Amino acid sequence: MNLIEQLNWRYATKKMDSAKTVEQEKIDAIIEAIRLAPTSSGLQPFELLVITNSDIKKRIKAISYDQPQVSECSHLLVFAAWDNYTPERINMMFDLVNQERGFINEGWEAYRQKLLNDYPQRNAQINFEHAARQAYIALGVAVVAAAEQQVDSVPIEGFEPEKLDAILNLPAQGLRSVVIMPLGYRDATNDWLVNLKKVRRSTADFVRLVD
Amino acid sequence: MNLIEQLNWRYATKKMDSAKTVEQEKIDAIIEAIRLAPTSSGLQPFELLVITNSDIKKRIKAISYDQPQVSECSHLLVFAAWDNYTPERINMMFDLVNQERGFINEGWEAYRQKLLNDYPQRNAQINFEHAARQAYIALGVAVVAAAEQQVDSVPIEGFEPEKLDAILNLPAQGLRSVVIMPLGYRDATNDWLVNLKKVRRSTADFVRLVD
Repeated sequence: MNLIEQLNWRYATKKMDSAKTVEQEKIDAIIEAIRLAPTSSGLQPFELLVITNSDIKKRIKAISYDQPQVSECSHLLVFAAWDNYTPERINMMFDLVNQERGFINEGWEAYRQKLLNDYPQRNAQINFEHAARQAYIALGVAVVAAAEQQVDSVPIEGFEPEKLDAILNLPAQGLRSVVIMPLGYRDATNDWLVNLKKVRRSTADFVRLVD
Repeated sequence: MNLIEQLNWRYATKKMDSAKTVEQEKIDAIIEAIRLAPTSSGLQPFELLVITNSDIKKRIKAISYDQPQVSECSHLLVFAAWDNYTPERINMMFDLVNQERGFINEGWEAYRQKLLNDYPQRNAQINFEHAARQAYIALGVAVVAAAEQQVDSVPIEGFEPEKLDAILNLPAQGLRSVVIMPLGYRDATNDWLVNLKKVRRSTADFVRLVD
């Protein structure tokens, strides 16, 4: 399948078969794609939680408007963004780049200073919103990665983030939940959406050419 | 190439060969992938501008901290989100779904009412930020789509959004620019980044298992 076929195959799975577990090698491929997703300045300002524990999935379902996929799924991904940009976090990532590349680049160091001068002074909520957007790039990559593995998925924003943060002890780690994504296999017999047409605005309505 | 190979192939292209034009069929495939990207409630709350006009690319470069790819690229994508959720926009999308699917679903209509009761009453900035996040999902898909086509790309947040909005006359259409992405072919001889190692946090640092 090419990418367009994969995107047409996937859909916002409303009902998953809780008896099925996604194979570890597929989970690993999805996680690796998320890890490789680009982010602003390469900061990767989020972490990925992968939840298989049944009790925790049920607790999260209860604060996610009881959406069934949250507990039926095989693996529940939680994208948790940095609550703020701090000098420590910026330096951690720039130091890692220097270490991995084995040299110090003058332009890169100037860019580090620019970020150190700009980001930590900004409002924490502004910084969190910026970090959250980066997690959404990875969410887009994750949707594709799951489809490539023929694993069903559904991005979910409908949950109470502060309660999810508390369940996962995120504030102590300087993280805030942004979006979650159950991974599993569709229960096609009981999913009302599975056979309905995917609807998007037409290319003519969605795209404007400026030539 | 599978997805992980594609993500390793791509990089944040810093210098593009302005003599090269990306083939239309590749552009079409990238646009179609963006159009198929999932969005919250299926609202697709953004539009895609595809800019090939040299003068306009140069004007945008001037308000993008003079980043060379903005004018060197073959096609410049601009993701422009809805400035607000209005009843008209919500109804437009729900009506389109009903029309395309050929029937009216009671649960879907109840969900329309829920959105109509919630979204338009919220602060416009909150709604724009939500719409912008949806555009970032599509940005993640776009990064993959370009790599699949072996087209170079680079997501760029470093521009002055209000000036870009003015150049493209976006406010009159209820749109605000969110992120841009030059598409083209790398100028490998002159790109300082092309041969440097891609750096990400290790899986152990990036992922937490909750089992």
